[in-house]
Amino acid sequence: MNIIDIIEKKKHKKALSEAEIAYFIEGICAGTIPDYQASALLMAICLCGMDARETAILTDKMAHSGKVLDLSALAPCADKHSTGGVGDKTSLVVAPIAAACGIHIAKMSGRGLGHTGGTIDKLESIPGFRTALSEKEFFEQVQRIGIALVAQSESLDPADKILYALRDVTGTVDSLPLIASSIMSKKLAAGAQVIELDVKTGDGAFMKTPEQAKALAQAMVDIGKANGKKTAALITDMDTPLGMCIGNSLEIIEVIALLRGEGDADLRELCLALAAGMISLAKGCPKAEAAALAAAALESGAAFEKLKEMVAAQGGDVRYIEQPERFERAAYSLTLTAPESGYLCALEAAQIGKAAATLGAGRQKKSDSIDMSAGIVLHASVGDKLDKGDAFATLYTNTQSTLIAAAEQVMAALQLSTAAPAPRGRILGEIQ
Amino acid sequence: MNIIDIIEKKKHKKALSEAEIAYFIEGICAGTIPDYQASALLMAICLCGMDARETAILTDKMAHSGKVLDLSALAPCADKHSTGGVGDKTSLVVAPIAAACGIHIAKMSGRGLGHTGGTIDKLESIPGFRTALSEKEFFEQVQRIGIALVAQSESLDPADKILYALRDVTGTVDSLPLIASSIMSKKLAAGAQVIELDVKTGDGAFMKTPEQAKALAQAMVDIGKANGKKTAALITDMDTPLGMCIGNSLEIIEVIALLRGEGDADLRELCLALAAGMISLAKGCPKAEAAALAAAALESGAAFEKLKEMVAAQGGDVRYIEQPERFERAAYSLTLTAPESGYLCALEAAQIGKAAATLGAGRQKKSDSIDMSAGIVLHASVGDKLDKGDAFATLYTNTQSTLIAAAEQVMAALQLSTAAPAPRGRILGEIQ
Repeated sequence: MNIIDIIEKKKHKKALSEAEIAYFIEGICAGTIPDYQASALLMAICLCGMDARETAILTDKMAHSGKVLDLSALAPCADKHSTGGVGDKTSLVVAPIAAACGIHIAKMSGRGLGHTGGTIDKLESIPGFRTALSEKEFFEQVQRIGIALVAQSESLDPADKILYALRDVTGTVDSLPLIASSIMSKKLAAGAQVIELDVKTGDGAFMKTPEQAKALAQAMVDIGKANGKKTAALITDMDTPLGMCIGNSLEIIEVIALLRGEGDADLRELCLALAAGMISLAKGCPKAEAAALAAAALESGAAFEKLKEMVAAQGGDVRYIEQPERFERAAYSLTLTAPESGYLCALEAAQIGKAAATLGAGRQKKSDSIDMSAGIVLHASVGDKLDKGDAFATLYTNTQSTLIAAAEQVMAALQLSTAAPAPRGRILGEIQ
Repeated sequence: MNIIDIIEKKKHKKALSEAEIAYFIEGICAGTIPDYQASALLMAICLCGMDARETAILTDKMAHSGKVLDLSALAPCADKHSTGGVGDKTSLVVAPIAAACGIHIAKMSGRGLGHTGGTIDKLESIPGFRTALSEKEFFEQVQRIGIALVAQSESLDPADKILYALRDVTGTVDSLPLIASSIMSKKLAAGAQVIELDVKTGDGAFMKTPEQAKALAQAMVDIGKANGKKTAALITDMDTPLGMCIGNSLEIIEVIALLRGEGDADLRELCLALAAGMISLAKGCPKAEAAALAAAALESGAAFEKLKEMVAAQGGDVRYIEQPERFERAAYSLTLTAPESGYLCALEAAQIGKAAATLGAGRQKKSDSIDMSAGIVLHASVGDKLDKGDAFATLYTNTQSTLIAAAEQVMAALQLSTAAPAPRGRILGEIQ
């Protein structure tokens, strides 16, 4: 077997065999297949595609390129993945709800980059919170309290790290089988038996149309099932930010409010739907029954208690969870008002995410540091009527010089209309 | 401008601008664009194509990546290129004919690889012949005697060397714009005003069908014209070897015979057609007039005198040209006979070329050395009637152990039929 033949085969739109895909993944990990051959094959995959069988095999070989966690002793153990958005703090709500319903949550999460945030950054805004647990600590914590949220282990899925870095610089990012296998290989390596996916679409998402998002969701669900995982996906809107807060400690504060029964209805609805999906898969019970369990865990305060338990177990200062006013406020703030009267008909998620990053809440490069208290609090949602001069957003930062540029970005994201926009749901579809 | 955007643009099947193509070629030569990005773009070009304008620009930028010879003082100066075949010694006949007709021939040629031979190897079988002239020697020789055939200069077209090496290991060889630009950029850099192309098709050629060969010929003629060169192409058959001899000194002996008015009619017809094309382009005269000039130069012996002049000028021992029996005979030979009676209906060129290489006449790798007197002499042509036991080929080598394997290859190339095959011409088409 040789890599040139494999590249030629894919270039001629033929399906690769399991042995060929294994040869490729082993070769890039061992360094026997150089970057320039790997990138040629990646481009051929971008342009000629991969069928469901190839994609499932690719994902499995990537997952097995490094350590694969064995969480069978923790069953039922569930994981969740969002394809990334602005203000997306659902994992921090869904995980405690599911854990409160008896589902083990042993979840690895990522950091933010560009206009999208990351769960691990948000958790690290809680003073003392440790996101780097040893495998033993991670395992024991899940066994003891049913939940742990940690940063991705470096030893998992080395093939994905190699391919991801190469795709980023070779124009081979936007390929459905490559995106799906990148996400799902990490999920397979992380070992949970249940995978609930939240595939975003719209302005602030990688998948611009619901059709693209649906195709990605289907591909990922197919991969999960082909590899013996209970997998389902929601397709959800990311034209506008999720919830009212964007920024790390600001989002933790919003999560606390939500778990205390307050907060944004739109965000609550999505969190409950994701939790219900996860519980239904894990318990094998009907969705309605799972939804009732999730709602009860939220309303009873059991989910909030679970969050506190997790924060305490991972070294975080629980007083911040009980009294979120303890979180440090940013030194500078600026409140933006409607320049004219009208209905808030759009608030472009990508622009808002970029503005939050400008303020210090996000990263342009992986090595950038984050201002934990920087970000944006929205005072209005799409569909609301604003009078000229009504406050619709407040910007927070510890770097005063960023305020003007961020304000311009947020103003550019704002669209007002004379007629009320047609109401739109956050959840656009479901793949099971 | 950045290379990722350029890769993405081509991946989305858009035409690249002149500035983008220049950025790519400059980047690979300067080393600022790494191999893995270059190979991704090459694969995107393979799969998404390039239009005639892009291909002409790519070729021009490649040609100008190194030194471009200025042969304007030698006008009319003509070059010729064959896409490679088995037994193809036409350059060694065409160049002296054209030179005898007053066309300057300042030609750089290549070496053989795989089953195809190379003009430079053949010339080096003449004792003393120097294929590496300085640019000054090259120029002065053409000025003085009207002809010089030398090895490709290392300083020409460095972009092609980089791209060619990368394409070879990334499954991106078989792309029409990449093949055409690779050939034509070297021709543009070599500086002649007239370019006559011989695009081979069939079993022993890279282009397997006449349609593919025609498309490549059209692409190359378009590139030449777009870059101000008088360019034309013949599409010619390479299902069977060209002429009766395959191997370096064996082919020189055949060239001498031909220039003395002897030898194979099929080979003579093609050589005269190529010479006529070249003369017609260079003099701007009708093809029939050019054909008459070429035939006269051959028949009068003027072309043969020109070959001797060139050999003498480049340090070769002219006694070998006058008395070709001086060429060293290989130590071992084996004559193959027809295993049964029948018409010779096929003699697969690729197999014959491989057999010649097995005997020592060719190279598997660039670094392999060559046995100058090794090769194959055919005693029959396609269409000939053979009786069982009639000799149809003799193999020559200085490495006795190669004879059996080579004999098997030649026997595998032989096809006999009970009915006479339909006669086929060597010249299948023409692009002007």
